[in-house]
Amino acid sequence: MDLFLGIDGGGSKCKAIIVNQANEILGSGISGPANPLHGFNQATNSIIESTQLALKSACLDHISLSELTVGAGLAGVNLPSLFDQMNNWTHPFKHFFLAHDLCIANLGAHHSSQGAVIITGTGSCGFSSVGGDERLIGGHGFPQGDKASGAWFGLQACEQVLLSLDDLIPSSLMNKALLAQLSCESATDIVTVIAGKNATFYAQLANIVFDAAEQDDPIAINIIKDGVNYLALLAEKLLMDPEVRLSILGGLSTTLQPWLMASLSPALGQQIVQARSSPEFGAVLFARNTLASLTR
Amino acid sequence: MDLFLGIDGGGSKCKAIIVNQANEILGSGISGPANPLHGFNQATNSIIESTQLALKSACLDHISLSELTVGAGLAGVNLPSLFDQMNNWTHPFKHFFLAHDLCIANLGAHHSSQGAVIITGTGSCGFSSVGGDERLIGGHGFPQGDKASGAWFGLQACEQVLLSLDDLIPSSLMNKALLAQLSCESATDIVTVIAGKNATFYAQLANIVFDAAEQDDPIAINIIKDGVNYLALLAEKLLMDPEVRLSILGGLSTTLQPWLMASLSPALGQQIVQARSSPEFGAVLFARNTLASLTR
Repeated sequence: MDLFLGIDGGGSKCKAIIVNQANEILGSGISGPANPLHGFNQATNSIIESTQLALKSACLDHISLSELTVGAGLAGVNLPSLFDQMNNWTHPFKHFFLAHDLCIANLGAHHSSQGAVIITGTGSCGFSSVGGDERLIGGHGFPQGDKASGAWFGLQACEQVLLSLDDLIPSSLMNKALLAQLSCESATDIVTVIAGKNATFYAQLANIVFDAAEQDDPIAINIIKDGVNYLALLAEKLLMDPEVRLSILGGLSTTLQPWLMASLSPALGQQIVQARSSPEFGAVLFARNTLASLTR
Repeated sequence: MDLFLGIDGGGSKCKAIIVNQANEILGSGISGPANPLHGFNQATNSIIESTQLALKSACLDHISLSELTVGAGLAGVNLPSLFDQMNNWTHPFKHFFLAHDLCIANLGAHHSSQGAVIITGTGSCGFSSVGGDERLIGGHGFPQGDKASGAWFGLQACEQVLLSLDDLIPSSLMNKALLAQLSCESATDIVTVIAGKNATFYAQLANIVFDAAEQDDPIAINIIKDGVNYLALLAEKLLMDPEVRLSILGGLSTTLQPWLMASLSPALGQQIVQARSSPEFGAVLFARNTLASLTR
C-alpha cells in the first residue's frame, strides 16, 4: 500500500493529510507553526506531530513514518538558506519532497502547475506559475510586509484604537471590541499586552476589523479598503496573462474575496476561480509528481 | 560637595550628566538602552555604566556612587508595573528619584513643570503638564504606535522599498539606499536581514527617508508628510491652552521641526520654543526639586 502524506506548513499551523494510491484522503491532523524562519526544531516537530495525528485519525497508527512519501509545502523556504536547512533535515520518512507553500497551494488550487494564488491568512502573498516562470509577490513578513494579512489587520486595529483612545481620531466600534478581547481597560493596558507579540497574536485580532466593518464602522471599512487595494494590485500583476486563473486562499479568503471582486475590473474578476483542492492536497500531488519524475 | 546625577534613559541609549551644587555640568556619559520594558537588568546596567562614564569624564572616578543624588527619567515607566520595578531597585546611590522620561524632558525644556514636549527619536510621543494636569499622548511603542519616530520612518522605508521591488509601486531613491545600507541585493535579502528586528534597528534606517526626500523623492516625501501630520495632531492637542509652550526634542527634532512648523497654523507655530536645557539636565532639576521637597 503506497501512502502519501501532504503537508501545508505555515506561520500559525501545520496541516497534514494521508492519501492512498487512489487519492482518497484517509485522515488529517493539525499541529503548531511550521515556518522554519521561526525555528527549525519547531518546524520539524510540527511536521512530525501533524503526521502522527493524521495517521491516528486514519486508524493507521501502526504505519511507520518510513513508509510515507511526503510532499511538504512550507512557508519561509523561499529563502534559500531555509530551504537548504529543511531539505537537509534527517527526516524519518521514505521520501521528503520540499517546496514552498505557495507552489503547493497553486498546485492544489488548479491541479496544474499553471495558475496563480493569493493567500491571505496569518501572512499574505501572491504567486503565479505561467509557462515555467514562477513569480512570488509580497510575503515579506510581519510587520514590514504581508499587507492585508490577518496579522496586518490585527496591527491596524491596534494602531487605530490607540490613536482613538488618545483622542487623535474619532471613536470606533473597534475600541470597545479590542479592549474586551484583550481584557484591557486602557491604552496603557493594551500596550502592555501587545508589546513584542508576533504575527500569530495579531492575526487573532483581525476579526475585530471585520466585525466592526459589518456594522458600518468607517475606520474599520477604511482599513479593509486599504488592505484590499493592495490585494487588487497583487491580482492585477498576477493576471497580466488573460489565460491565467487565480484562486484566493487562506483563512481570510472567504471574508476578503467579495471586497476584492468589487475592486477588480469585470474582466479580471472572471479570471478568479474557486480552488479545486486544498494546499495540503496540492502537496500530495507534488509528492506524486516528483516521485514519478524520479522513477521515470 | 553635593553632586547630582541626571539620567535620561530611552530605548536606544542612556545619557548621564554630573552636575555640581552650582548647576555646572562636570561630565557626561552615554551607554546602552535603559527602557525597563526591554529588560530590568539591561536598564540598571546602562544606568550604572553611563554614571561611571560620566564620573570618569569629570575626573571624579574616586567618588562613590553612594555620594550621588540621582534624578532618572526613564522611558517605559509610565507603565505602573515598570515604575514599581525600577523604583524598588536596590540601587547603589545616595538617592534615586524616578520619573518618566517625558516629565524630565519637559522640566529640562522649560525649567518649569508647566509646558509641553514632543519627543521624536527612536520612539515618539507627546507630553504636557498644565496646572497639575499631566497628559501623555502616543508613545505606544513599536510597531503599533510611535508614528513619526525613527523606528516608524525606518519601517515605512522598508515597507515602501519592498512594495517597489515587487513592482507594485513606482521606484524610489530609497530602494538603492536601503539595499546599500543593509548590504542586500534583493527583497529576499532585505527580509532575511530585517526579520524580527527591533525599534533601534529600524531607527537606524530613518535617514534613508530624509536623504531621499531631500532629493525630492515623492514616496519619501509622502512618508514624511504622513508622519508630520501625526505630529501636528499631537501638537494641536497639547497646545489647546494658548499659554502653553511646546518644545520638539529627540534625535529627529532638528530634521522634523521645519516640516512640522509648515503644517501648523501661525498661532500654534508661535507656541513652539527651543528647549532651554536637555532632558538629562531636567533630571537633575527633578532630583534637586524632589530632595528640596523632602527636606523642607
